[in-house]
Amino acid sequence: MPVVTLPKELSENLDMLAVVERWQAEGRKLVLATVIETWGSAPRPIGSHLIIDENGEFEGSVSGGCVEGAVVSEAMDVLDSGEARKIEFGVADETAWRVGLSCGGKISVYLQPLATETDHSLISLLNKTRSKRQPAALLTNLATGSSSVILFGSDAEDPSLSAAFEAGVRSGKSGQVQSDGGEEYFLSMQVPATRIVVIGAVHITQALVPIAQTAGFDMTIVDPRTAFASQERFPDTPLLAEWPEDVMAQLELDPFTAVVAITHDPKIDDLPLQQALRAGCFYVGALGSRKTHAKRKERFHAAGVNEEDFARIKAPIGLDIGGVTPAEIAVAILAEIIVTLRGSKAEQKKAV
Amino acid sequence: MPVVTLPKELSENLDMLAVVERWQAEGRKLVLATVIETWGSAPRPIGSHLIIDENGEFEGSVSGGCVEGAVVSEAMDVLDSGEARKIEFGVADETAWRVGLSCGGKISVYLQPLATETDHSLISLLNKTRSKRQPAALLTNLATGSSSVILFGSDAEDPSLSAAFEAGVRSGKSGQVQSDGGEEYFLSMQVPATRIVVIGAVHITQALVPIAQTAGFDMTIVDPRTAFASQERFPDTPLLAEWPEDVMAQLELDPFTAVVAITHDPKIDDLPLQQALRAGCFYVGALGSRKTHAKRKERFHAAGVNEEDFARIKAPIGLDIGGVTPAEIAVAILAEIIVTLRGSKAEQKKAV
Repeated sequence: MPVVTLPKELSENLDMLAVVERWQAEGRKLVLATVIETWGSAPRPIGSHLIIDENGEFEGSVSGGCVEGAVVSEAMDVLDSGEARKIEFGVADETAWRVGLSCGGKISVYLQPLATETDHSLISLLNKTRSKRQPAALLTNLATGSSSVILFGSDAEDPSLSAAFEAGVRSGKSGQVQSDGGEEYFLSMQVPATRIVVIGAVHITQALVPIAQTAGFDMTIVDPRTAFASQERFPDTPLLAEWPEDVMAQLELDPFTAVVAITHDPKIDDLPLQQALRAGCFYVGALGSRKTHAKRKERFHAAGVNEEDFARIKAPIGLDIGGVTPAEIAVAILAEIIVTLRGSKAEQKKAV
Repeated sequence: MPVVTLPKELSENLDMLAVVERWQAEGRKLVLATVIETWGSAPRPIGSHLIIDENGEFEGSVSGGCVEGAVVSEAMDVLDSGEARKIEFGVADETAWRVGLSCGGKISVYLQPLATETDHSLISLLNKTRSKRQPAALLTNLATGSSSVILFGSDAEDPSLSAAFEAGVRSGKSGQVQSDGGEEYFLSMQVPATRIVVIGAVHITQALVPIAQTAGFDMTIVDPRTAFASQERFPDTPLLAEWPEDVMAQLELDPFTAVVAITHDPKIDDLPLQQALRAGCFYVGALGSRKTHAKRKERFHAAGVNEEDFARIKAPIGLDIGGVTPAEIAVAILAEIIVTLRGSKAEQKKAV
């Protein structure tokens, strides 16, 4: 089984960077510990962080409790020496079992001091980038312990690492990479949470919302028809019972947002679809038969949407899995969103 | 948008047949009303039933309330004349809106008397078949009002309707069909609820269970490891914290059951997989790399599983949508189960 990262854990890691920045601002001396490799079953995924200050206070988790004590004690040595180091831990079968894994494993934890002004500004930069929903990565040279930040849309200092960064943006997974020069790095990925904006509070939406929320997506619903867009039909989901022209601008569509338009009513669907194309949303899908879509094409061309942009709309919406019920159609839509976000393994191999 | 049937509504229809049998046993004279066609937005899907007795008492729904009164009144005439009839109703925009649909529509309702011994025995047969989890259909000639039952594995009286029955078993959808002789029939499908038995109460299962339940599947989990198979981890889900050899027989695997084996441990996964193949489960999936699957093949061949049966196991499990998180892998598994159950539209066109 591949090592997998739950969105929840991912956001815990992001929160760790906020802790780091706060602690830095308080003038504490810090060590950042990161799970950089795992074998067998490991309690916490690659990329998990623990942050330790000079008094041995810590936040985060690299093992769900079993090796934190040892990491904190090593961190004191790292602060004294100023030198990064790597330590390996075995996770005993019994402990692994307790944390819900089927067998023991090993983890490799990297400890690096965050003591200089440069370190501080890197963490600030990552947090700023995060607030703007832009992907970025903390790149650490495992031999020297020195770090830099790679931003989306700009090249890595070492160009041979750019492809690994792009693959990381796509998968959301952190990991070790080797430069063409043979140097070992750890790429700690920071990717914005994926959002799905659904235009239409219809039956399919009632299935799609809980399914997609379980799968870790942020959901927002827009539908001006208050009979549909009611909090009773969609508890605990952000719901805008407004016309899209009045509220879409607030949503700040971006390349990590999917837009799913399923009202069947051009007066409601058309504008958000056009805005999604302009904003470069990674997924733009619309319900409707081929005939409906052909009419949509005429309207969109008249509105100035070019051929290439229009072709980005997935219609009929969803993978062709023969879904019959609204819930099965919702699964088909979500599967299409995931394959568009992550790409199939075959596509990933091509890309890397 | 195609007319879609929620599993919930499907089971309401099945319960209607239980009501019919109970009322018949009480000696009541009955009329069965069925939505046989819809145009535009209709409040209840094709195949929805209303059952009416000679005193105008009724159960079920053909329109969510808007036309029931008229149907009940027509039913009295049907009982008097003994003749089946078809009536059409417009559903006003306002009413459609109230029941959560975007625009008005029309429905066609077929009323047939259920007064003879033959009618009684057909309903009993359908209910018996249902309790054995076998698909069946009530086939009604719309010109004459006479009905018969088609059972799974046997041909329809009119062979030209067998293909429509098979397509109905696959999709679960009721609908009008025409025989080669040009006669119009309504095929009221009765298909068992689809079950998913998950071997392994692991992370992926924690995502798969709520997602699949939302999509209308019956879930059962088997895992002998009590640290995993706990009711806290899986609230409201049937959970067997036992070794598969002790409990699989109770589950009565059948062609409308999917078996998903994801413990990664041959001691737990192998036996249920082999039983699933023998029972003709429509979907048999197993987690594991190609290398793991090659080793599984050796073990299964040694256990007497032939090449053709082994090839039915989907491994690596799930559609290749590039899922990264356990929840995304769960979506990939569920999408694969749905496409195996329903077939893609392309496959369905080939089959019919």
